Formats: sequence, structure tokens, C-alpha cells
Amino acid sequence: MSSANRVAATRGSGRPRQAVLDRELILRTALRLLDERGEQGAGIRDIARELGVRPSALYNHVAGQDDIIAGLRELVSDRIDVDGFGSLPWDAAVRLWARSYRRAFAAHPPTIALLAVRPLVPGSRTGRMYDAVCAGFLAAGWPEERVLTVVVALESFILGSALDQVAPDDMLDPGDGDDLQHFRAAYAARARGLAERRASDAAFETGLDALLAGLGAELAGAGPVGGAALSPDGGSAVGEA
Amino acid sequence: MSSANRVAATRGSGRPRQAVLDRELILRTALRLLDERGEQGAGIRDIARELGVRPSALYNHVAGQDDIIAGLRELVSDRIDVDGFGSLPWDAAVRLWARSYRRAFAAHPPTIALLAVRPLVPGSRTGRMYDAVCAGFLAAGWPEERVLTVVVALESFILGSALDQVAPDDMLDPGDGDDLQHFRAAYAARARGLAERRASDAAFETGLDALLAGLGAELAGAGPVGGAALSPDGGSAVGEA
Repeated sequence: MSSANRVAATRGSGRPRQAVLDRELILRTALRLLDERGEQGAGIRDIARELGVRPSALYNHVAGQDDIIAGLRELVSDRIDVDGFGSLPWDAAVRLWARSYRRAFAAHPPTIALLAVRPLVPGSRTGRMYDAVCAGFLAAGWPEERVLTVVVALESFILGSALDQVAPDDMLDPGDGDDLQHFRAAYAARARGLAERRASDAAFETGLDALLAGLGAELAGAGPVGGAALSPDGGSAVGEA
Repeated sequence: MSSANRVAATRGSGRPRQAVLDRELILRTALRLLDERGEQGAGIRDIARELGVRPSALYNHVAGQDDIIAGLRELVSDRIDVDGFGSLPWDAAVRLWARSYRRAFAAHPPTIALLAVRPLVPGSRTGRMYDAVCAGFLAAGWPEERVLTVVVALESFILGSALDQVAPDDMLDPGDGDDLQHFRAAYAARARGLAERRASDAAFETGLDALLAGLGAELAGAGPVGGAALSPDGGSAVGEA
């Protein structure tokens, strides 16, 4: 193996070791820098500096920034459990998928907003995750044209819940004062009700159950939710100020 | 007015004008820089440079970075419509609130992940938004200890949907190929079904309807969703790999 494929491993304690420069190492380094520094500290040059190589050396293994982002999505979405689809009832499979999905993204908070708005890269492993999910929805009886709309609705909830999981537990603390009486009462009552449970876990399970109850009713034949009475711009008959 | 309170207005075309340096101008500048450059380009020094003043001049009007973030949250959350609480049925009020909430954050995408994880600052106008929402939930009959758990579940969905609204319409395009047959079929069917409607709007309305259906069942007396059968760590009886 040429020396160009060996880099100083800078992570961990002890004496420097030599690691093999490959796609996996580049992606794991990119994910670590993203977690530590945010998107603006995890570019090609940052990764190369961290690995002690020239930026050009990275291009033997990755095609560029978009390819790195596709690889980051693979690293995160590899942790999403789709095994329930095809083996468990639809709602149980969705729970397993949703919980693992939230956990995978909450473990790497900067990936949430980054990956939520970047297109999938065709050919990436992430497409296989979606294929397994779509297969499960279709097998459960979801109409073909509804599957991805429902999946995206669930994903929006999951990713928002991953953000909330990262937030501090006292994020909504109204502080002291004599105003905001309803907010203060609700905040204190939630704390009493939660006991040792995390507020973000309770909110996630509540929303997941509510979504599955509503979606389950559509699947059971109550007709589409969210589709019928809406104008093309997504508005409804309810007037908006 | 002293010259320290006048700054060169750098926005817009035409000859430079003098604007009054006040909290409002500082916050609007911070929001614009955040939108243009992200969090790392919207610090105190960046705002001061943009306004052509020394950083110390800003401290006559804002207490520091946390105060600026609280102010950004006020600017965004001022656009959230709580007028339905107290005048419309609970579910219609939630729809009005949720749609305006999503729109307010989607108009400033970097605020979504930033504000989702920062604690409220006591005394900010945002507390009044939460107070109005809590009052509406309590008046609708929600048990005091359930209100904020349900509100946060809805917020997670709304903020995730705001991220999805910012994403390109073809974000999930599986590309060409012979594999991923379920994913490709679902993607093509969704496009046919959507016609001119935006995929993100359809997903948002679908999820909102499903959440309200599930939560409405709890409110109508079906008992709490997401609360009962869970272990303290938020897990459930469904085994996770």
C-alpha cells in the first residue's frame, strides 16, 4: 500500500497511529467534524487537515462535497431499523423505524437540518432504506400515491423530535413571575406528571401514537386525511389572518 | 440623538441612508445575516460590521448573543397566529397556529434548528405565545399535565415540516435504475397524485390531520395516547434491535 493511503490517526490518546485513508475514514472524520464544529467546519479542506493529507488525496476516494454528504446520510441512515417491515404489523414496524430514525439523527444533531434539505444521491444506500419502507407500506395496503406523502409526514415529525431530543429538558421553563399563568401552570403540571421521564420522550411517543391513530384510521378505510378539502396551495376552509 | 445612534444603512440600493441604531434594527440585521450566512456568520461582530458600528455600541441595546437569539425568536414567533385560541374550536385553532408557525420558520430556515434547541428567555414575548396556546388547550378540556407534552409533539412536527418545506421538491427522487422498485413506484405515483400541489404541503396537511385525529380522540375521552404502556426510558413493549 502506498504511503498516500496512510494517514496519521489524530483521534484518541496515545501515540499517533497510521490509518488507511479510505472512503469510510473520510466519512467518519467528516461526521465527527460536523458534530464538533457544524457544517462550516466540515468541508473538504477541514477533513484533509484533520487527516494530515492534501485535499487532492481525498478525491481518490470521494467525488466531492455532495458525495461526502451522501455518505454522511448513509452513515446515519444505516442505523435506521427497517426490519419490522415485512415481519411486524404495519404500525409496529413504523414505531421501530421511527424510534431508530430519531435516535440515529439525535446522535448527530447537525445532520438533522443538513440532511433534511439535501436531495438524495441516486445509488446511495439510503435509497434502499426508502425502498424497504415503501414495500412495507404497500404490503400493508397503503395506496401507491399516498405512501411517500405519509412517509414524509412521519419523517417531518421524527426529525423535529430529534431536534427536540437535543434541546435541554428545561427549554420551555417560563421562569419566575406573576404573568403567563396558563403557561406556568402547564409547565409545572407537566413536570409533576413526567416524574423521571424525559419531556422529549413523552412528546415523541405522544405524537407518534397520535399520528399512527390518525393514519391507521385512513388505512382502515376512513379515506385520506389531509387530502380532500384543501385548496392547491395547501390552505383550507379555515380563514387565516 | 447622538451620532452613536446613527448607522449607515447598508441594505437596499441607492445612496447610503442613516438609520437609527436600536434593538429592532440590530435584531433585523441579525436575522438577515443568519438567513444569508448561517449561525456562524451572524455573531455580534458580524452584526456590528454590517451596521458600521463598533461591537460595543450594540451593547447599549442588547445584552449579548443570548439576548439576540431571544429577540430573533420574538421576531419569528410574532408571526405565529394564536388568535384562534378562544374564538375557534380547538382543532381549528391548532390548524391556524400550526400553519402560521410552519410558515414563520420556513421563511427563515436557519432559525429552525437554532431556536429548536435554545431555551426560552424568561420575559420574552415568546412566553405570551405559549401562554395563549396553553390557555386554549386548557379551555378545550386538555388535562393540565398533558398540555405541553401535546404542544411539543405538535411543534416537533411543525418544525420538521418547516425543514421539509425548505427542501427541494425532488428531494426524494430515486433517479434512474432497475432496482428500488417499490420506492420508484411510490415516487412516480405521488407525483401523479399531487398534480400541481407541493409535496411538502401535502405531507404537512396529512400529518396535521392525522395528529389532530389522534389527539382529538384522546381529548374526546379515549385516554392518553403515548403515555400508558411505556417504560420510563420511552421504550415500549415492541422490541428494538
